[in-house]
Amino acid sequence: MSLVRVHNFAVSLDGFGTGEGQSLESPFGHAGGRLHEWFFPTRTFRAMQGNDGGSTGVDNAMAQTWDAGIGAEIMGRNKFGPQRGPWEDHDWTGWWGPNPPFHTPVYVRTHHPRPSVRMEGGTTFHFVDGTPEEVLRQARDGAGGLDVRIGGGPSTVRDFLAADLVDHLHVVVVPILLGRGVRLWDRLEALEERFDVESVSTPAGVTHVTFTRR
Amino acid sequence: MSLVRVHNFAVSLDGFGTGEGQSLESPFGHAGGRLHEWFFPTRTFRAMQGNDGGSTGVDNAMAQTWDAGIGAEIMGRNKFGPQRGPWEDHDWTGWWGPNPPFHTPVYVRTHHPRPSVRMEGGTTFHFVDGTPEEVLRQARDGAGGLDVRIGGGPSTVRDFLAADLVDHLHVVVVPILLGRGVRLWDRLEALEERFDVESVSTPAGVTHVTFTRR
Repeated sequence: MSLVRVHNFAVSLDGFGTGEGQSLESPFGHAGGRLHEWFFPTRTFRAMQGNDGGSTGVDNAMAQTWDAGIGAEIMGRNKFGPQRGPWEDHDWTGWWGPNPPFHTPVYVRTHHPRPSVRMEGGTTFHFVDGTPEEVLRQARDGAGGLDVRIGGGPSTVRDFLAADLVDHLHVVVVPILLGRGVRLWDRLEALEERFDVESVSTPAGVTHVTFTRR
Repeated sequence: MSLVRVHNFAVSLDGFGTGEGQSLESPFGHAGGRLHEWFFPTRTFRAMQGNDGGSTGVDNAMAQTWDAGIGAEIMGRNKFGPQRGPWEDHDWTGWWGPNPPFHTPVYVRTHHPRPSVRMEGGTTFHFVDGTPEEVLRQARDGAGGLDVRIGGGPSTVRDFLAADLVDHLHVVVVPILLGRGVRLWDRLEALEERFDVESVSTPAGVTHVTFTRR
């Protein structure tokens, strides 16, 4: 059975998955890098950047589960890039350079479809419009029987949670208060009733909260 | 130096300190007892109820720090009871029976002052109107040089945090999504910059987050 999984999704203690004022220079707005300081030192993140070394403790153990068994990713248009509305810059191919770390089809959910973009290393960006169910169906077709990751941002994760399509949700609660931005948790009352929930704090100061579908 | 402290303040993962629909029958509204399931089995809570026994692990260790060195409590009017607006039932003396667990002066912040109420065991309820600074001044006068606890609810804790009057904040994050109610964290951007923050998850499934003023 192909599962739908969310990994390494960081939120502030007040529940924001990104800050306000996202732009080319500040993909997470006024949050800057603060939601991901736990992640940067891990071996997993360093390897995604093409670097050696990095921590190998529990933060890394949680982080590294993100790609095993994944055959496709779904991401929101705001994770793909800073443009809003109709595509004006067709040269934009994401934040990740010529060889993105996904190495699978990636379905970018947008009201403004455009031709697919094939990158090095097996990543192809497809631009699709539709309900979570419709986009998931396309991603499953592209995943070759493997699992589908919902890559973010917060609105996209929330949409798939609200549609009850997520089997595994890994959220990292970072003890900062952003005060403004995009909330993950809105309109998800009683989500926990459908999941087993586990919380583990780490020496980095964050708390990994894992929701596993019952 | 008399400190201002918050203890055992439970919030849902989406940041609500109480649910919606508070009433005499449901002091925490639709949250019911779910924010405090970690607390009920502790020796500290059982002793507050006049019972023996109870757990003695980390949840209890955190819980029991609530009263040492405290000379007064400040609480919001909604923590004191379910009445709103002008006091109609002067016989209401709180949820806690004839001998409340505070054993100090308690300053109930309300726009509707009424005569003080002296209970058994050293608790006296005073009803006071004013800014957080003004109410704290009165509570410090009543605390005899000891610390002052901000007892809740969420609006009251938030008001004192926003006024930068809190020295120690102990929040218990409970991994449930209430979806509605009263939020603790609104309007507190960058609160963490003034504190050292520590997070510890426990086998009860909750995470104790402690803010200690730098």
